[in-house]
Amino acid sequence: MLTGIHAVFIGGDARQLEVIQKFAEKDATVTLIGFDNLQNQFSGVKKASLSEELLREADVILLPAVGTDDNGKIDSIFSSEELILTEELMRSMKKRCTIYTGMAKPYLKKMCHEHGVRLVELFDRDDVAIYNSVPTAEGALMLAIQNTDITIHGSECIVLGLGRTGITMARTLQGIGAKVKVGVRKKEHYARAEEMRFNPFYVQDLASEVSNVDLIFNTVPAMIVTAQVISHMPHRSVIIDLASRPGGTDFRFAEKRGIKAILAPGLPGIVAPKSAGKIIANCVIDLIMEDQEKWGNG
Amino acid sequence: MLTGIHAVFIGGDARQLEVIQKFAEKDATVTLIGFDNLQNQFSGVKKASLSEELLREADVILLPAVGTDDNGKIDSIFSSEELILTEELMRSMKKRCTIYTGMAKPYLKKMCHEHGVRLVELFDRDDVAIYNSVPTAEGALMLAIQNTDITIHGSECIVLGLGRTGITMARTLQGIGAKVKVGVRKKEHYARAEEMRFNPFYVQDLASEVSNVDLIFNTVPAMIVTAQVISHMPHRSVIIDLASRPGGTDFRFAEKRGIKAILAPGLPGIVAPKSAGKIIANCVIDLIMEDQEKWGNG
Amino acid sequence: MLTGIHAVFIGGDARQLEVIQKFAEKDATVTLIGFDNLQNQFSGVKKASLSEELLREADVILLPAVGTDDNGKIDSIFSSEELILTEELMRSMKKRCTIYTGMAKPYLKKMCHEHGVRLVELFDRDDVAIYNSVPTAEGALMLAIQNTDITIHGSECIVLGLGRTGITMARTLQGIGAKVKVGVRKKEHYARAEEMRFNPFYVQDLASEVSNVDLIFNTVPAMIVTAQVISHMPHRSVIIDLASRPGGTDFRFAEKRGIKAILAPGLPGIVAPKSAGKIIANCVIDLIMEDQEKWGNG
Amino acid sequence: MLTGIHAVFIGGDARQLEVIQKFAEKDATVTLIGFDNLQNQFSGVKKASLSEELLREADVILLPAVGTDDNGKIDSIFSSEELILTEELMRSMKKRCTIYTGMAKPYLKKMCHEHGVRLVELFDRDDVAIYNSVPTAEGALMLAIQNTDITIHGSECIVLGLGRTGITMARTLQGIGAKVKVGVRKKEHYARAEEMRFNPFYVQDLASEVSNVDLIFNTVPAMIVTAQVISHMPHRSVIIDLASRPGGTDFRFAEKRGIKAILAPGLPGIVAPKSAGKIIANCVIDLIMEDQEKWGNG
Ligand SMILES: NC(=O)c1ccc[n+]([C@@H]2O[C@H](COP(=O)([O-])OP(=O)(O)OC[C@H]3O[C@@H](n4cnc5c(N)ncnc54)[C@H](OP(=O)(O)O)[C@@H]3O)[C@@H](O)[C@H]2O)c1
Ligand SMILES: NC(=O)c1ccc[n+]([C@@H]2O[C@H](COP(=O)([O-])OP(=O)(O)OC[C@H]3O[C@@H](n4cnc5c(N)ncnc54)[C@H](OP(=O)(O)O)[C@@H]3O)[C@@H](O)[C@H]2O)c1
Ligand SMILES: NC(=O)c1ccc[n+]([C@@H]2O[C@H](COP(=O)([O-])OP(=O)(O)OC[C@H]3O[C@@H](n4cnc5c(N)ncnc54)[C@H](OP(=O)(O)O)[C@@H]3O)[C@@H](O)[C@H]2O)c1
Ligand SMILES: NC(=O)c1ccc[n+]([C@@H]2O[C@H](COP(=O)([O-])OP(=O)(O)OC[C@H]3O[C@@H](n4cnc5c(N)ncnc54)[C@H](OP(=O)(O)O)[C@@H]3O)[C@@H](O)[C@H]2O)c1
Repeated sequence: MLTGIHAVFIGGDARQLEVIQKFAEKDATVTLIGFDNLQNQFSGVKKASLSEELLREADVILLPAVGTDDNGKIDSIFSSEELILTEELMRSMKKRCTIYTGMAKPYLKKMCHEHGVRLVELFDRDDVAIYNSVPTAEGALMLAIQNTDITIHGSECIVLGLGRTGITMARTLQGIGAKVKVGVRKKEHYARAEEMRFNPFYVQDLASEVSNVDLIFNTVPAMIVTAQVISHMPHRSVIIDLASRPGGTDFRFAEKRGIKAILAPGLPGIVAPKSAGKIIANCVIDLIMEDQEKWGNG
Repeated sequence: MLTGIHAVFIGGDARQLEVIQKFAEKDATVTLIGFDNLQNQFSGVKKASLSEELLREADVILLPAVGTDDNGKIDSIFSSEELILTEELMRSMKKRCTIYTGMAKPYLKKMCHEHGVRLVELFDRDDVAIYNSVPTAEGALMLAIQNTDITIHGSECIVLGLGRTGITMARTLQGIGAKVKVGVRKKEHYARAEEMRFNPFYVQDLASEVSNVDLIFNTVPAMIVTAQVISHMPHRSVIIDLASRPGGTDFRFAEKRGIKAILAPGLPGIVAPKSAGKIIANCVIDLIMEDQEKWGNG
Repeated sequence: MLTGIHAVFIGGDARQLEVIQKFAEKDATVTLIGFDNLQNQFSGVKKASLSEELLREADVILLPAVGTDDNGKIDSIFSSEELILTEELMRSMKKRCTIYTGMAKPYLKKMCHEHGVRLVELFDRDDVAIYNSVPTAEGALMLAIQNTDITIHGSECIVLGLGRTGITMARTLQGIGAKVKVGVRKKEHYARAEEMRFNPFYVQDLASEVSNVDLIFNTVPAMIVTAQVISHMPHRSVIIDLASRPGGTDFRFAEKRGIKAILAPGLPGIVAPKSAGKIIANCVIDLIMEDQEKWGNG
Repeated sequence: MLTGIHAVFIGGDARQLEVIQKFAEKDATVTLIGFDNLQNQFSGVKKASLSEELLREADVILLPAVGTDDNGKIDSIFSSEELILTEELMRSMKKRCTIYTGMAKPYLKKMCHEHGVRLVELFDRDDVAIYNSVPTAEGALMLAIQNTDITIHGSECIVLGLGRTGITMARTLQGIGAKVKVGVRKKEHYARAEEMRFNPFYVQDLASEVSNVDLIFNTVPAMIVTAQVISHMPHRSVIIDLASRPGGTDFRFAEKRGIKAILAPGLPGIVAPKSAGKIIANCVIDLIMEDQEKWGNG
């Protein structure tokens, strides 16, 4: 239980509703900032405005997936009010207050560092990245179905990268009956791909592997689907780039060659906000409870 | 090869392009009626208007998936011209001319019967129904992803019917990580479901199986998701009804209870017209070649 | 429940223990003939000798999987006593007494026919055949692992027949990572094989499909792995023939060519007698309860 | 190619034949020591006795999977000759000679360290461990089929550890239709298990997870299936312990409670020596060729 914990939510999207709900269920004291238009009534949850007084009381602060922008602005789909995480606000936070977000921009990192506030980037964590890979892969699959005139079953798919997202992506495609090749750079990934009955190749040979491809799903956060690679791809093929901005594709060249290439960030929040919210909620609550055990309740 | 076979295509949608292409590749003589707006140039394929002279020459006539409507009208997305299959046109066809379509309405069946023209309904065939089950299941999966805020992975799914579409639908959902229950009425389907690690139940018990369901996929062409069943479903759940019109769901009651219910006919032509066209092409070409073997080439 | 039903078990193997147990649990009156050496004590179950008096009381008689041999002899692994199903015994059975067995030889069929006793051959039933396909496939897999020096994962396997056993066999091999081709003769089986991502071919082309095979699993009860086929197989390959005696393999030629060929009947009773017994028990109990509903309890 | 490389094989089992074959194919100069009874003729491969002169010429030396025993003895199933890796022999090896083995005992490690000879333990490598996990899992599955009277399909299985062997073991069981729970200790393993549709739990809760188990497969190289755990297991259940000697099971207590517990080391060499040999061959050849690239051919 989170009894006695004061959690302040600043901004967010549909995912955050699930987190709020779980916090309320666990008996946390919950205050919402930037949720004025939210109808949904959670029992025992109150709304407030962004203020130093309030943050002074906070044990944990929950920001949206992207934290703040480069100027400290926090997005909320539930409010038109502007929310800025200023120096003053940072300064008001108590020692041991922890800020949770998905991924932090330099602004937020710097702020936390300067003011000695602990910052937890959830999407960095292996467990969260693996859980998030599931809605990511489903979103990518949906895009693939929508953007081709063929069935994914029986199609020639390539997944680049066999990390946390890549394994799930490859498994999802295989599960639906695609022929799956995976591009890797480590021998142990090559071996695991063989065990999983994906057809592995080394990414350095990518250009020679794409001549018959229908779909490429990229999870490598580096320029990998280069102009040279694209020039070997059939015109009908589609690139779905999952790597975080700016992706790993030469989008300009793809467009020039008439090959559809889609940069698709933030899929979990788009295709499965409720599941994505649950992932965040479970992880944060776990971490808070571990902290409680470590430090006691006070 | 189809050398010497004169194939006349009347109307159609994107699927038919694939069929035309395959016929051209197999060296058939191909005439297109109702394709005036089609840019795509197939070598050796000519366009024409609907006329008795032309049909007199036809060895095979290919109609769109739905054949004609109840008044003999044939749809074409490539033309604004009106295409009607009249008595006169039927009369002009030669003995042994065969008409291929997906499913025939009573009008077309009657016409063919009266004029002694062989009619082949492709979607009736077990092989075609199984091939088509693949794009159908992918389309249904796409709808499921779009119409829920959770991942299909880990969700509670029910598939009704373990026929040609039902098996594929259940396998697709299992492949992507859903928890799959299937509702059947035959003991051998129950047994096969257990072997396939679906959780089977008998459809007579449907009402008691839905209390925790996230998604129902119906393939039973009979009223099965009744008001009584719907009244036991959670509000969040979604019904995707694949059975041909009017489906097997009490849509009126679903709406009243605020449960999303989607009638989703014709998915292969929508989500994978190229694959769907290939299925038709392969089957028709096979059948023609078998006929040739049986009867000789003349 | 089976209260009031008198079930007489004559002979059997380890499977029958499971059936006896279930009958006892369901409150049937159970008498065992030919189980003298059985230690296992089931409560409320008594042993007896084969006699007309006893069979006169029987509502159902359960014979072992193979029923009787061609002379009426019934096997029992729990007794050295000879058990013969004579004319006299048959004559003593009451109208509506039903005999359950796996598969009946002509002797038993003739006896039942002549004396008007209903005979149920369980292994004939689609549901039982499908349930039994599971231990059959596991047994075949065990033989494959034992009789090769390679892993089944990654090996080139062919399954002949896509019936009740064939589907399960192919799925089991695919599940463990083999490359699976299936030989069929019906178009709808070809289509289902493609949907299931097996590589299908028509059995008429078998000889040209085996040049690289590691393992053939035959479920076709007809001579299909002929000398001609075997002559195209590599020496290292292994044939596991699951079809009932005499199998579908030219064993003599296989031996001559030095290719290992194994006829493997009765696998469920060998590798999973408890599961196999449960399959029989569930089915028989179901059938008896359906009869009760139809006819009332008397 | 391995042209110019002198490879000396000292002892071994069936696996080594595959390695020798591959070396010969790659044009290495191959000398076999301790293979006097080997019939199999590899072209261009010569046999010899263990001598300083010979080892002086060796570029690479291949020992069996277990290397030497604690006294320097090397096993060979192809010879009755005694083979001892003495100080003198070690001293004769040239700088840059590399010894390849599966796992090295302290004796071998010490020898190599003292004489500055590079030692590569292949089974330590992630890629090799993953490749070997495949025959290991198949061997374990075979043992499971042999040692139960139920089908693995539908049975309650627990896999302990989700490392290189554990993932493959769990996937194999799932592939054949078992209900699979996996015991882990890291959150990211818990997450991956959920993605893969295994049911995860934390190993600290093992005792409370086994009350209904049919089979436990252990891959954790530490005492984990303790007396306390075993006391909660049903009598029918079976433990298959894959961890290297002495395993992770309290075998004494299991025996006392009448629960079958099997320590099963060295499965790849037992159930699939040819595949196991190929894994070794591919890896060693790869490593040699990388060395060649790095250092040139001389
Ligand atoms: N679109 C979305 O909705 C969404 C959702 C989640 C994550 N993501 C993004 O997806 C990307 C992957 O995330 P992840 O969690 O899967 O990360 P990850 O576990 O680190 O996987 C990244 C993979 O890329 C490979 N890689 C990195 N640099 C490479 C290079 N230069 N050449 C070849 N391979 C290279 C890595 O290989 P090694 O193991 O050899 O290093 C690894 O297999 C990230 O950019 C992440 O932000 C997007
Ligand atoms: N939406 C699309 O894009 C799309 C695409 C393809 C097909 N379809 C439609 O989907 C439906 C199923 O097609 P299919 O090819 O799968 O047909 P199918 O093989 O005949 O399967 C129909 C299933 O429904 C069961 N069923 C029929 N009546 C029932 C009843 N009263 N109670 C319980 N179960 C019943 C059948 O069970 P038994 O085996 O026990 O008879 C069978 O398993 C058809 O309406 C078809 O037109 C739609
Ligand atoms: N070894 C064991 O422990 C064990 C256990 C169970 C069963 N069995 C035996 O296994 C065999 C198969 O049983 P099942 O239940 O799977 O039967 P099934 O469902 O009838 O399947 C038999 C398959 O063989 C095909 N077939 C039959 N004759 C053929 C021919 N001349 N050419 C090509 N294909 C042919 C059938 O194809 P179509 O569909 O086109 O007719 C069907 O797919 C039987 O002999 C049975 O007794 C053995
Ligand atoms: N029987 C055979 O034929 C055969 C074949 C191959 C390998 N093996 C043996 O199998 C074992 C596993 O090999 P591997 O390659 O899979 O190793 P691995 O990748 O290191 O996996 C070992 C697993 O055990 C877990 N683990 C270790 N200590 C633990 C503890 N105290 N409590 C809970 N979990 C613990 C590890 O978890 P963390 O990730 O949390 O550390 C890891 O998941 C080794 O002993 C190896 O020699 C046997």
